[in-house]
Formats: sequence, C-alpha cells, structure tokens
Amino acid sequence: MTTRFDASCPVPLAPDERVQLAHGGGGRLTRQLIERVFVPAFDNPALAARHDSAVLTLGGQRVAFTTDGYVVQPRTFPGGDVGALAVYGTVNDLAMAGARSAALSAAFILEEGFALDELHGVVASMRDAAAACGATLVTGDTKVVDRGKADGLFVVTSGVGLVPPGVDVRPARVRPGDAVLLSGDVGRHGIAVLSVRDGLAFESPVESDCAPLDGLVAGLLDAGIDVHCLRDATRGGLATALNEIALDARVGVEVDEARVPICDGVAAACELLGLDPHYVACEGRMVAFVAADDAGRALDVLRGHALGAGAERIGTVTTESVGRVVLRTRVGTHRLLDLLSGEQLPRIC
Amino acid sequence: MTTRFDASCPVPLAPDERVQLAHGGGGRLTRQLIERVFVPAFDNPALAARHDSAVLTLGGQRVAFTTDGYVVQPRTFPGGDVGALAVYGTVNDLAMAGARSAALSAAFILEEGFALDELHGVVASMRDAAAACGATLVTGDTKVVDRGKADGLFVVTSGVGLVPPGVDVRPARVRPGDAVLLSGDVGRHGIAVLSVRDGLAFESPVESDCAPLDGLVAGLLDAGIDVHCLRDATRGGLATALNEIALDARVGVEVDEARVPICDGVAAACELLGLDPHYVACEGRMVAFVAADDAGRALDVLRGHALGAGAERIGTVTTESVGRVVLRTRVGTHRLLDLLSGEQLPRIC
Repeated sequence: MTTRFDASCPVPLAPDERVQLAHGGGGRLTRQLIERVFVPAFDNPALAARHDSAVLTLGGQRVAFTTDGYVVQPRTFPGGDVGALAVYGTVNDLAMAGARSAALSAAFILEEGFALDELHGVVASMRDAAAACGATLVTGDTKVVDRGKADGLFVVTSGVGLVPPGVDVRPARVRPGDAVLLSGDVGRHGIAVLSVRDGLAFESPVESDCAPLDGLVAGLLDAGIDVHCLRDATRGGLATALNEIALDARVGVEVDEARVPICDGVAAACELLGLDPHYVACEGRMVAFVAADDAGRALDVLRGHALGAGAERIGTVTTESVGRVVLRTRVGTHRLLDLLSGEQLPRIC
Repeated sequence: MTTRFDASCPVPLAPDERVQLAHGGGGRLTRQLIERVFVPAFDNPALAARHDSAVLTLGGQRVAFTTDGYVVQPRTFPGGDVGALAVYGTVNDLAMAGARSAALSAAFILEEGFALDELHGVVASMRDAAAACGATLVTGDTKVVDRGKADGLFVVTSGVGLVPPGVDVRPARVRPGDAVLLSGDVGRHGIAVLSVRDGLAFESPVESDCAPLDGLVAGLLDAGIDVHCLRDATRGGLATALNEIALDARVGVEVDEARVPICDGVAAACELLGLDPHYVACEGRMVAFVAADDAGRALDVLRGHALGAGAERIGTVTTESVGRVVLRTRVGTHRLLDLLSGEQLPRIC
C-alpha cells in the first residue's frame, strides 16, 4: 500500500522524538508522520488526491505512478515471498487507480554477505509474479551496504500504468449510499507471515492471499461499471483501508460484521492470539465502492473471477460518523473500527 | 545511476556465493550480477536499451521511467546530503533520456530509533532540491525496520517524465566520429564524501558537485542539437560512464587526459590516497555524445549554463578497441581505462 497523505490534525514535533516501528505500520502514527513531515514539504494536487497511486497528466494521457518498500520478515511465508509481494503490491496500487499495462522498476538494497542463491530465488519469484499479471519489469538498481547495516534484502518496487479514458477511480468520488464490496476473505497474509515467525504453528495452516488484483479491476471496468473508488487492504487490514477512505472521502462507512468473510484458520489464529481479524493484513483483497444500483452486477463480476469468488457486499457509505468506520456486530450492537496506532504485526510487508 | 543490463559474458553462479560490497559499486561485479541474475529473469526491449531510464510507450506518448536507491554514508557531506542526492540522481537519470516534467516518488526505509529531526532535514533537502529543478514529489511510502536492521535511513526515488517528440537519446545512437563532451570537472562528489568519512581532512576542502542536469539537457535540446546519447557520471566516475557507453553502443572511446578537468582539491586528494580521479564518483556531471559538426555549438550551450561552465570536448568515438575506453595521456602514451570490479569507495551514493 502506498502511503497516502492527510493534512488534518497536525501534531507538533517533540524534540528528540524518534522513529518507532508503528510509524511504518500504516495506522495513525504513519498518518501523523506524513502530516507532520511529508505534507508540509511536498503538498501538491497529485499528493492531495490521497490515492494508492498518484495520477499524473503526461502529454495528455493520465499515468498512474506508485512506489512501495518491502521489508517483510521472514522473506518467505506460506503462499508467497517478498518478491511476489513486491510485484503484486505495486501492480495492485496501480489497479486501485484503474490503471493498466503496468511497467515496474525494482531497487534492491542488499546486505553484504547475502546469499546469491536466495537473491536468485527472489528474482525468479518476481519474474513469475510479473508474468502472472502481464506486468513488465523495465528498470532496476542495486545497492549493497556493509554487513550488519541491513537485514539481508529490501526491495522497493515502483510502477507506472495508463488510466484509460473515462475511468475515474478515487476517494473523492465516494458518495453516501454507495455499496461497499469486499473481494474475498480477510486476514490471510498477516496470519501466514505470523505462522512462520517466532516458530508459531497453527492447527489449520493459512496461506497468504498474496495475488494480483488487476484482473478483478479490469473485469469491473470492462463490464461498464462506474467504480467510484478502490482500495486494497494491506498493512492494517480491512479496517485501516476503510478508515482511510472514510477520512479521505469525508464519509462514514457502516460494515455488517456477519458479511465479512473470514476463513476458519484465520478466525482460530486470531482468537488464540487476541487479534482482531479486521486489522490483520491482506495482500490480495480489495474494497470497491459503487453506486447501490450497480452493487449486484459488480458482485456478479467479482464472483466470476477466481480471485473474487468469495466477494461480498459488506456495507454502505453513510452521512453519519463522518471519517469513521462502524461495525454492526452479529448481536446487533455497534462498535467503532478505529484507526490503530500502528500495525499489530510489524514488518508484515 | 540506474543499473543497466548487459547479457554479454555470463558467468556461472558458484554455490554458496554471497553478495560483496563491490556488487553495488557500479563496476564489473555489478554488471555480472545483472547479467547472471536479472537479465535471465526480466529481459525485454526496454531493459535491452541499456539506458539510465527505461523509455516506455504509454498511450502513444514516450515516458521515461527510472529508479535508484540511496545508501550514502555519511548522510550529510560538503555540498549535499542523501536527500538532495536522491532527488537529483533521479532527475538526472530522466534527463539522460531527454525527458522533461519529472514527477518523483520516494520510498523511505527507516530504522527504529532514527531521529525525526534528521528525517525532517532530509525531507527539507528533498523539497529544496525538487524546487531547484522543477520536479514534483507526487507519491511515497514509509517502512520501519527494527533497531539494528538498517543503517538509519535508506531512500529509493523513482521518477517519470515525458520524452518530447523528436528527441531520441540512447546508447545505440552513438556513432564513430562522435565528439564526447564532458559538462565539468570530475571527482568532486567522491572526494567530498570521503573527506567526512573516517575523519579524513584535506587541505583544500572539496564540495560535492551534486546538482540537477535537466537544465543543461534542455539547453542542448532547445538549441536544436541532435544529442545522440547522454550519461551522468556517478558510481565509478567518468571512466565507468564511458565504459558503459562503449560496451552498450559497441564502439571505442578515446579520451584526451589533458582535456579532462580535475580541480586542485580533487587532484591533491587523489594523489594522497592513490585514487585515479577518472573513477571517482560525480553527482552533477554528464557526458554528451554529438556529431563532430555539432560539437562546437553544443559546447557553447553547455558553457552558457552555470552548471556547464567548465565543459570540455574530451574525446572521440572510434571504431578501434570496441567496448573499451582508451586514455591518451599527457605524455602521449595510451592507457586502458578499464571497468573496475567495484567502486573504489563503497556507499558513495
């Protein structure tokens, strides 16, 4: 997920303040960092759109442009690895702007002593992931730092893609009454990474949902559905993605807990560890905002695609609780799905 | 400098082989890494052009796209810092493809505990650098890794820009007989970084040449000069930039040592440390290849710009010694300026 920028509620910088892990978690502290450090320096219309990709006009064409760093630990996990993550993450950020024909760059920061064999494996995984979604890796860079000054390998992928004429997918287009669709069950990626970290093992093995979303988006657009906004649920999970849209589009979002698909393995692991699955990272799930009248048709399109087979209409955009996400629980009560300070699980992507 | 890809002379991968600092130095080992790991996975026409930027066709427009990681140590040095370097480096890679209207992304990888004050400083420097060359930072990402797993801060900048119609700047256009122009004196950046590393201090303080080259390139193109190829001299200095062009364009390059400007401070430091200044990194110098008939006019254009005041015609493209750079020394002998294994000074950018 590309960091988005929000100028609301700036907090003054305390002297001697230092970066915490939560500053990279995608939650409230990440937003504060952006508000206090990046927005004052770089505010401009493309940033202000608060999108997964910036959309630029270059020579009369709209070009989506995005970047993301990948520092996941461990680098290989059930269902994927850092290479697949780096390709799909950037392809997905472009898709969230309705862009096609993804061209990618990859910058590697390697630690001296890193095994070339493992680098080969990461690169092979990037190649396969790119081939799986028709993306092309067109340029790259490699830097090496001395032993002990990095953690094996970090990858930063950036991407560009063309936004077709007529496609206008962005937070500002979300309207009260819009249906909120979710493309599948949530929390797999976070639990998959956790399952191989610190030697944890769960009864039902969970695989990461790590996958490209460009096909789902193309399906919606090709069906002529006027998609208002898309967002993939990555760091901070479904709850964070919805909070970002609620804040950036200045609307409320009401979610029906019973409608949010969660697989047994994720549910069991979350219960065991005291995690709320709504906040656990995904890497192949998105929310789509469409007019209520289009919701049925859009759901049919999503469900017709292998990666959207479990799609559900999970909620509605409201004029109440602007900037907030409210969960209607299974017992009929309401609970705020607030933006967390950080990610429950650091270095998840 | 964006890594370029070369499929010549692949070397088999030995078991248990590990990444060395020289793999990131921009020299022979970087090329080997690319040949053995990246090219087999990702070869495609944009990569094959071996350019500082990939040039894509998006919706009928040519878009240049590039990425670079910045891991310089120390992060601040006379004449610049990692923030300015990250902006100018990417602006320059776009300019080397003749592109304009640079839009940049920045991905930060931060170590837990990094001082927010220093982050503010880096971001302010990026803002000032972008303003100095009309670039816009449109999107970003922040990741945080645990203490001891990075070295304070790494930045990866990527950029896109539009290549105007009629502009065709790339290695394959270099022709025997072309004049080789250099925009100013070489080696300042490497010596400036070295001067603050390990407590070294030189008699004549040297400032980095860290600067944007887009103005120089626009000057040449606006004057109607048919620029065949451009390359900024970064890691590995002038000699490495010329070797890359010689290899990628399959030509020879003869350089007149007496014509290569080197300031007194750089010359003295190189003599003291036994460094060859032709290999010491620059961050604001480029070589331009133009037809011999255009050389005089192109030099006038470069010299009319503050950042090109010291421009010289340093050599000629030949049909002899294909893939090699030959230095005609002050005493009239010839010496091979070979591609080094790595960079003489690690983590120079």
